Amino acid sequence: IAEPRWPLILLRTPKGMTGPQSYRGEPVEGSYRAHQVPIPDAKTNPESLRIVEDWLRSYRPDELFDGQGRPMPDILACCPTGDRRMGSNPHTFGGRIRRPLDRPDIFAYEVALASPENGLERGVSSVSSLEHVALYLRDVVARNRHQFRIMSPDELESNKLGAVFEVTQRDYQWPVAPHFSSHIGSDDGRVLEILSEHTCQAWLQGYLLTGRHGLFPSYEAFLTIVTSMMDQFAKFLKMSQQFSWRLPVSSLTYLETSTLWRQEHNGFSHQNPGFINSVLNLKPQFTRIYLPPDANTMVSTLDHCLRGTNYVNLVIANKPKLPQWLTMSEAIAHARAGASIWPWASTDDGVNPDVVLVGIGDTLTEEVMAAAEMLLHEFPELRVRVVNVTDLLVLQRESEHPHGLDDEMFAALFTPDKPVIVNFHGYPSAAKQLLFGRRHPQRFYIHGYQEEGTTTTPFDMHVVNATDRFHLVMQAIRLAAPVNPAVAARASERIHHYEYVLADFRRYIEEHGEDPPEIANWRWTGKP
Amino acid sequence: IAEPRWPLILLRTPKGMTGPQSYRGEPVEGSYRAHQVPIPDAKTNPESLRIVEDWLRSYRPDELFDGQGRPMPDILACCPTGDRRMGSNPHTFGGRIRRPLDRPDIFAYEVALASPENGLERGVSSVSSLEHVALYLRDVVARNRHQFRIMSPDELESNKLGAVFEVTQRDYQWPVAPHFSSHIGSDDGRVLEILSEHTCQAWLQGYLLTGRHGLFPSYEAFLTIVTSMMDQFAKFLKMSQQFSWRLPVSSLTYLETSTLWRQEHNGFSHQNPGFINSVLNLKPQFTRIYLPPDANTMVSTLDHCLRGTNYVNLVIANKPKLPQWLTMSEAIAHARAGASIWPWASTDDGVNPDVVLVGIGDTLTEEVMAAAEMLLHEFPELRVRVVNVTDLLVLQRESEHPHGLDDEMFAALFTPDKPVIVNFHGYPSAAKQLLFGRRHPQRFYIHGYQEEGTTTTPFDMHVVNATDRFHLVMQAIRLAAPVNPAVAARASERIHHYEYVLADFRRYIEEHGEDPPEIANWRWTGKP
Repeated sequence: IAEPRWPLILLRTPKGMTGPQSYRGEPVEGSYRAHQVPIPDAKTNPESLRIVEDWLRSYRPDELFDGQGRPMPDILACCPTGDRRMGSNPHTFGGRIRRPLDRPDIFAYEVALASPENGLERGVSSVSSLEHVALYLRDVVARNRHQFRIMSPDELESNKLGAVFEVTQRDYQWPVAPHFSSHIGSDDGRVLEILSEHTCQAWLQGYLLTGRHGLFPSYEAFLTIVTSMMDQFAKFLKMSQQFSWRLPVSSLTYLETSTLWRQEHNGFSHQNPGFINSVLNLKPQFTRIYLPPDANTMVSTLDHCLRGTNYVNLVIANKPKLPQWLTMSEAIAHARAGASIWPWASTDDGVNPDVVLVGIGDTLTEEVMAAAEMLLHEFPELRVRVVNVTDLLVLQRESEHPHGLDDEMFAALFTPDKPVIVNFHGYPSAAKQLLFGRRHPQRFYIHGYQEEGTTTTPFDMHVVNATDRFHLVMQAIRLAAPVNPAVAARASERIHHYEYVLADFRRYIEEHGEDPPEIANWRWTGKP
Repeated sequence: IAEPRWPLILLRTPKGMTGPQSYRGEPVEGSYRAHQVPIPDAKTNPESLRIVEDWLRSYRPDELFDGQGRPMPDILACCPTGDRRMGSNPHTFGGRIRRPLDRPDIFAYEVALASPENGLERGVSSVSSLEHVALYLRDVVARNRHQFRIMSPDELESNKLGAVFEVTQRDYQWPVAPHFSSHIGSDDGRVLEILSEHTCQAWLQGYLLTGRHGLFPSYEAFLTIVTSMMDQFAKFLKMSQQFSWRLPVSSLTYLETSTLWRQEHNGFSHQNPGFINSVLNLKPQFTRIYLPPDANTMVSTLDHCLRGTNYVNLVIANKPKLPQWLTMSEAIAHARAGASIWPWASTDDGVNPDVVLVGIGDTLTEEVMAAAEMLLHEFPELRVRVVNVTDLLVLQRESEHPHGLDDEMFAALFTPDKPVIVNFHGYPSAAKQLLFGRRHPQRFYIHGYQEEGTTTTPFDMHVVNATDRFHLVMQAIRLAAPVNPAVAARASERIHHYEYVLADFRRYIEEHGEDPPEIANWRWTGKP
């Protein structure tokens, strides 16, 4: 490994050096007065105008320009020609030289739901979306050694993407001990790892602008600190659309993980899904937010994101092993639609549910599925429809976002008028603003992160934010009771029962520091 | 001025220094493996447990603890006693020693709306809220020389708060030239000025926690970069409420100015009101957001904020001179209510308007008032009600925020069912999420910042975001026409008229680089 010796020059200069030295008796150079407009009244005060003129003449423009104001030939002779001109460097016009990413066939990464004995078994395989998509990323790296990089503020391995190191390594610029090179696939490391989200953001922006491709995996709570940089990049995308010579560049894709919902090791300080809200404030034509519910949907989604140009993509998933719901073909269709009814988990026979349960986000979907299962088994008279949303922007009206569902499709999924319980990964504010323009938005009951939580178990994080299966079940019963007499007949008894179960579970968690086995080992068993 | 010579020690150590040296044949110390849990299987693998045990024994616990696990007497003798103990330092329990701020009577800062000849004249005096509240702040500084500081990432003078320097100066720690000391009031500068929002945030947090008071003025777009720190502070406030020995500390008050709506000198990069959205995601009991419409309301609001404890206050105002609307007594009542009908600008006789116009933010209110005036004079048959919101949180339901209006008061202001045009300072997303839970939210038409704009005139910034008087007037006509035949009769003609006027104005702006005189010199003239 080469050991670079970067040159470093430190030059400390007074602010406003070589500018006008003083104004109205006060020194300018080297003071805060050198900021903004140091000589503010030059337009109206001849004495001030003289200060500005003297200053400008100190550059001796007569030696630099001819009588017509053109630069002198000897000045022009200093300029490089062609692509060597600063404004014509091909690498500043990445869109012109961009080649599509060489992507493998995603069916090679399908998590199989079928077993030879039982056929299709949903909710059984326990797979980490991150660990799994790492296999896909590994092969993307191997196929694109000169045009794909991962900028990583955390240990890639901590974010479960370590499989990438089967074919590449970290790109070290600092002299390192020999034992660092344990992940040698080539000496051209495609992973840039540095504990600075700001640096990763800047690196990736620059890399994309040169026509290449990349990915930015990060802890959810820490992306907040690059909100302003992300906004500036989106502003650049918007402005660049106005110039025909600015061809599209690859999208900036965030893989947001290590989310607030798993806090066994961290805690309250690591809980902030606000990056979603920040992305939602960008121009809609540049923003995409995906929350794939399982590993197949994750592979399909990331493959889609790495294909696109001129988007800011935010893909959100947790690291732990979770149940799997869709085959790869179903996942592709689900991701294309953005949201689907899961009929195999619904008891409304496709029409007229008492209540709609919606999962947005992987662990939030797991709680929705557990709630649906409880209702299927313990409350068969309650007609429930299960919907999953993987593309957050389908919630918005089609007039406000290109992915927004039109009114007919929205009603087809969520019914025109039935109560809808939404279990959402982020702050409820994000779902509320998206649903604001929909008809009868009050029928949507948004569960999400309410700034509650500490260092605790996964299930407890849900309970304290009312996003757990029991809160969902109890609310479904409350909402269905007024319209379904069979539900009403058992509502009070059942709700009190679930309150007691929940209280027992919380006592168990406090005592043992881990989730009760019924929760930790829960598996979807399907309809009765 | 003393010239401090701060000591500086740079120590570079390998990560995980003195920890377990290797694991499974791979070195740990000095590598990424020293992060998180370097020996992950100590619970189950005796060999790994041995590594951990050897490491822990290297600290020689036998010499540090007695047989009962208590620290040895010679160890305990090293500890200081009483307040010298790290956990008992009085300055880490600021709530115990906090004294209220000594505040002047705010009526001394009243902007007079009355003139001897004409009596009460609204909308005439042209005053900068910032320049004006600086007089109040100057006197707060003078009265509280040992317990009030301003942490300022921008030039305080650029933010129009320069009057503070009549009684204090910048607190320089670096050796400075003598001419820097031009603002000498004492050599104890109460203004800490550094071009780092992060440093200002950290300074102010620390200062508040020691029981003192402070203020953080900042450019709107740049506050975004301390979102994460602000969230951490709010999380601290929440947790500290759980401990009886954590007494309340002074609120953290942001004075957000130099907003997106004035971009004559900056441009698109300086347009981001997203800090509002971030504050809205905190726990409601700690968050307050104020957008005072004029200088009297600003003085009343800031005085209120500096009095409180345990809040994150966000106060938003622009710097330019703007029309003044309320006397100090009215401003106090308006700020207490959070939102009021302005009957002197309304033509609904207190009942049954065709449409409600709502201003939230000072320049947004100016456009609402100009729209109302146009309607009063040119469309007297359209019954319009003007409402001003100075406390953003009144929009939310009372069950979701302590300042939320109950349903009756909300309907009293905004009617139960009439169309409401909201002209809001920030991203529409913020107003939408707040109004989500209200009945018939679809009748609210939210105008706000749509990520449109460049370096341009104040009026043009409004036009490109559809927050200008003409867009408001045209929408009011459209919404009133279906229910008011007299409006319907002239609607099409008038809307086309205003479209032409607007097109003419935009041509003028493009040609002259400044707003047309009708706009730049517009003054409220009241009802006909």
